[in-house]
Amino acid sequence: MIGSEINELIQYLAKIPGLGPRSGRRAALHLIKHKDRLLKPLADAMLKVDESIRSCVQCGNLDTQDPCLVCQDPRRDNTIICVVEQVADLWALERTGCFHGRYHILGGTLSAIDGIGPEDLKIQGLIERVHRIQVQEIILALNATVEGQTTAHYIMERLKLAEVKITALAHGVPVGGELDYLDDGTLSTALASRRSFSETS
Amino acid sequence: MIGSEINELIQYLAKIPGLGPRSGRRAALHLIKHKDRLLKPLADAMLKVDESIRSCVQCGNLDTQDPCLVCQDPRRDNTIICVVEQVADLWALERTGCFHGRYHILGGTLSAIDGIGPEDLKIQGLIERVHRIQVQEIILALNATVEGQTTAHYIMERLKLAEVKITALAHGVPVGGELDYLDDGTLSTALASRRSFSETS
Repeated sequence: MIGSEINELIQYLAKIPGLGPRSGRRAALHLIKHKDRLLKPLADAMLKVDESIRSCVQCGNLDTQDPCLVCQDPRRDNTIICVVEQVADLWALERTGCFHGRYHILGGTLSAIDGIGPEDLKIQGLIERVHRIQVQEIILALNATVEGQTTAHYIMERLKLAEVKITALAHGVPVGGELDYLDDGTLSTALASRRSFSETS
Repeated sequence: MIGSEINELIQYLAKIPGLGPRSGRRAALHLIKHKDRLLKPLADAMLKVDESIRSCVQCGNLDTQDPCLVCQDPRRDNTIICVVEQVADLWALERTGCFHGRYHILGGTLSAIDGIGPEDLKIQGLIERVHRIQVQEIILALNATVEGQTTAHYIMERLKLAEVKITALAHGVPVGGELDYLDDGTLSTALASRRSFSETS
């Protein structure tokens, strides 16, 4: 005996990752309780994003401007491109505030199981970008998964002839991580990639 | 370097209970990825609810109609009123499909700490309802918390003079519950309220 309008709202809310039918109901009640402070502004923010968001033609980032803010920024280094799987990874790297080059979003990883081949990803665009502008370094910031590493190797293969330095993120013990809780793969990689103690900061 | 429109969306999403800054970002990306299937319909559903939702003047339920669907339904029993704390409780009871009377939503519980007295709840309205229509039973379906039980006792006190049967939900072992994991309070209540084995179904 829930009204159809509320039911519809709950059903859509339940589709948001992190929510489900139960949290969807809770969210709906919370939104209705805070109609003016949350429900209306959230709906407006959604419509605004719906109307104005687009994919950056250069790097694939989501923004209301095209090229995106990162690609537009004249202070950023054109000679380094950081290759990531998806927008969330770009956001994560931007939050560190440590990278000042450009990005290139692949839109996923190669995956035989899911039938995703090189032509489904923005790999050709990356190759062309590398040849068009004077790129000196490509950072392959892909996930440390089988798919991520396969994709990294494929890109490395394709860029063999281009005169560009190709690097990848370091693997090792996460900052704050305890050895006892680490998986064996990470620990053995960290051991194999050990560095002179004076190098670590 | 996230565009301001997306940032605004993330910030509002993060305020939904069950989400936070991290899930807010994930939700925003998911919504943008499914623009036509989710982002737009959800925004529209929100605006529709924002415009049309109101509190039922009789029971306090949220609906687009006033009186609400439950209060309007001629098949429901006028002689039983189930008193609950909030709308979510009414929804929970409706999901059981076992109750066919009317509801009365208090809008909270008495709480000395939060300074919530009888005049802040819809208690007066309940008393008037009981005297106005021929109510035979009041079910106090309040939470098994100190506040819920205090409120139940207060309402019982206020209804002393009315000729109405007052009942409360049974306390005991939840269906599917294991004794070993139950708190002592529940277990001792279940023991004290034990019933003849033939009574249990």
